[in-house]
Amino acid sequence: MSLIHGGDWAGFVSEYGKLPLDFSSNISPLGLSPRVKQAVIDSLERADRYPDPLCRRLTAALSERHGVPADRIVCGNGAADIIFRLAYGLRPATALVTAPTFAEYALALTAAGTKVDSFPLRREEGFRVNEELLTRITPGLDLLILCEPNNPTGRTTERSLLGRISRRCRETGILLMIDECFLPFVADEAAHSLVGELAENSGLLILRAFTKWYAMAGLRLGYALCGSEELARKIRNCGQPWPVSVPAEEAGLAALADREQDAQLRAVITGGRRQLSEGLTALGLEVVPGEANFLLFRSTDTELCRKLREKGILLRDCANFAGLSPGWYRTAIRTEEDNNALLTALREVIQGD
Amino acid sequence: MSLIHGGDWAGFVSEYGKLPLDFSSNISPLGLSPRVKQAVIDSLERADRYPDPLCRRLTAALSERHGVPADRIVCGNGAADIIFRLAYGLRPATALVTAPTFAEYALALTAAGTKVDSFPLRREEGFRVNEELLTRITPGLDLLILCEPNNPTGRTTERSLLGRISRRCRETGILLMIDECFLPFVADEAAHSLVGELAENSGLLILRAFTKWYAMAGLRLGYALCGSEELARKIRNCGQPWPVSVPAEEAGLAALADREQDAQLRAVITGGRRQLSEGLTALGLEVVPGEANFLLFRSTDTELCRKLREKGILLRDCANFAGLSPGWYRTAIRTEEDNNALLTALREVIQGD
Repeated sequence: MSLIHGGDWAGFVSEYGKLPLDFSSNISPLGLSPRVKQAVIDSLERADRYPDPLCRRLTAALSERHGVPADRIVCGNGAADIIFRLAYGLRPATALVTAPTFAEYALALTAAGTKVDSFPLRREEGFRVNEELLTRITPGLDLLILCEPNNPTGRTTERSLLGRISRRCRETGILLMIDECFLPFVADEAAHSLVGELAENSGLLILRAFTKWYAMAGLRLGYALCGSEELARKIRNCGQPWPVSVPAEEAGLAALADREQDAQLRAVITGGRRQLSEGLTALGLEVVPGEANFLLFRSTDTELCRKLREKGILLRDCANFAGLSPGWYRTAIRTEEDNNALLTALREVIQGD
Repeated sequence: MSLIHGGDWAGFVSEYGKLPLDFSSNISPLGLSPRVKQAVIDSLERADRYPDPLCRRLTAALSERHGVPADRIVCGNGAADIIFRLAYGLRPATALVTAPTFAEYALALTAAGTKVDSFPLRREEGFRVNEELLTRITPGLDLLILCEPNNPTGRTTERSLLGRISRRCRETGILLMIDECFLPFVADEAAHSLVGELAENSGLLILRAFTKWYAMAGLRLGYALCGSEELARKIRNCGQPWPVSVPAEEAGLAALADREQDAQLRAVITGGRRQLSEGLTALGLEVVPGEANFLLFRSTDTELCRKLREKGILLRDCANFAGLSPGWYRTAIRTEEDNNALLTALREVIQGD
């Protein structure tokens, strides 16, 4: 099996016998909060039992957090689980995704038999979605997926354009999925989110996850906020009944109740974004002005990943993203100390020290 | 959403504010072993990272345990995850399952577009598979699923007949899935298992789980042992890349290394099976001579579940199993003390005390 995503720390461990400094996955560098850890430990008393297939408690907490009725919320084994459920549960004949974007959308849809077209994002426009996308929203399309901010570019679509895209989809009867997994890292999260439109658009689905902000990638917890009960039911029924483990549900509940780390994380990411952006630019690299907890950049050296790996650092090679090419890399934003380690290693590689 | 399976302790908790005594799920009554719990706790240091999508360490341990090459093993988010991956990954046009059997097979297959036929098991034959099944293994069939021992009957197919069924499937080019999730509870597990035939039958898939024997239902960990690399690849690729959480992989590794509870669990189940079988029979109930960690029985009272629930006990109503009818119930085998509590409650209900 080939690995197409970043985050293969296990492969590094089996080769080097130690953990790498991982910039290839976009996860909060603060790690799991102590309260989340404790919630998992406490959950072990009930982990011999099947999970609650309805995730009643977590769904209720998410309903309160987002103001979305509980019967329109579907929890899954990470956001990737929801993506596959969407693909197989709805089986859209056609779908449109941007290029580049997270590869899992097209993978899941293609596996389910969907014809997936792509909307090219232009390097000279900083990889932002432009108005041309509106002309692609026609009756022949079944599903449009936008990742806000987009992975791996970190760019968001201009908010008023996003509103027009959403309206056009609703009017044309096209399902719109907005992946907001990275939206908490954007400065004006609330203003950019489409959650407020769920009440009036039954064909809207918003994807969220605990993976990145709460550093819960290993616990697996994501969810869909749906514009209708019917949409939620189709996604819920397309897959096994117990996708969310007992520890994951408890971790999610603890994470939602624990706002202590939020301000610290926001400061780390904002500062780290500036630090890395300036540092990478100073090394002569082209940096896309991303708004999330990662940055896309370009180097003339197409062997950067291999060279950094030898120094114990994982970077995401973006050559296999549709719409990108060898020389594009994505780096997560980590703590100031970690970011310095990356910049130092890059300087050594680039300047041949 | 309706709940078709047992184990809805969460629904009980939300109604009564306390945990029930749960005989509706077939899980080891010894609970999670201390070593498994510790492994989950230790795993939290790495649970902020994505799981290893290849489950390299767990797959290696399972390969050693079963003598099956690692590239023919697929780990999933519980056995139910594997069932859905099989259905969507292979999309058989037709499948045959017994009636009754675990409902998830037909649910997953029907959702994937498969035409599912059933082979009726007869009450007067103690719900065992008979030779007639051989006549149903014809070229028009794509997939045969047998659950050994069968859920909810607890019966196994006579071993030599099982061998003939397997041979007939291989000769006819029909995929055979044997669900051995409950096989560890059967007295002669090794003699009954078809794992030894994997080397010579590329169309054989054996389903296993940590759920029942290791009481890991809430942690979600199951796996498929496949007769070919190609079969494994199709199942692995049909679904998200990170189905097994970091805690689940570590729990699985710890469970495989920890044989301390095995003898105790075997004694509890063997003794409890006799205790419950005799106790239920003494209450005038018809008991199917199951070989697993649960027993199927019949009562003239079709309200037994409701009445026991009011006493804080969950039983599995089997009225919704294809091939069964109101009045059939399944009870898990628990500790002697728990079993006594069930028998006492049943006596009160039946004798109107």
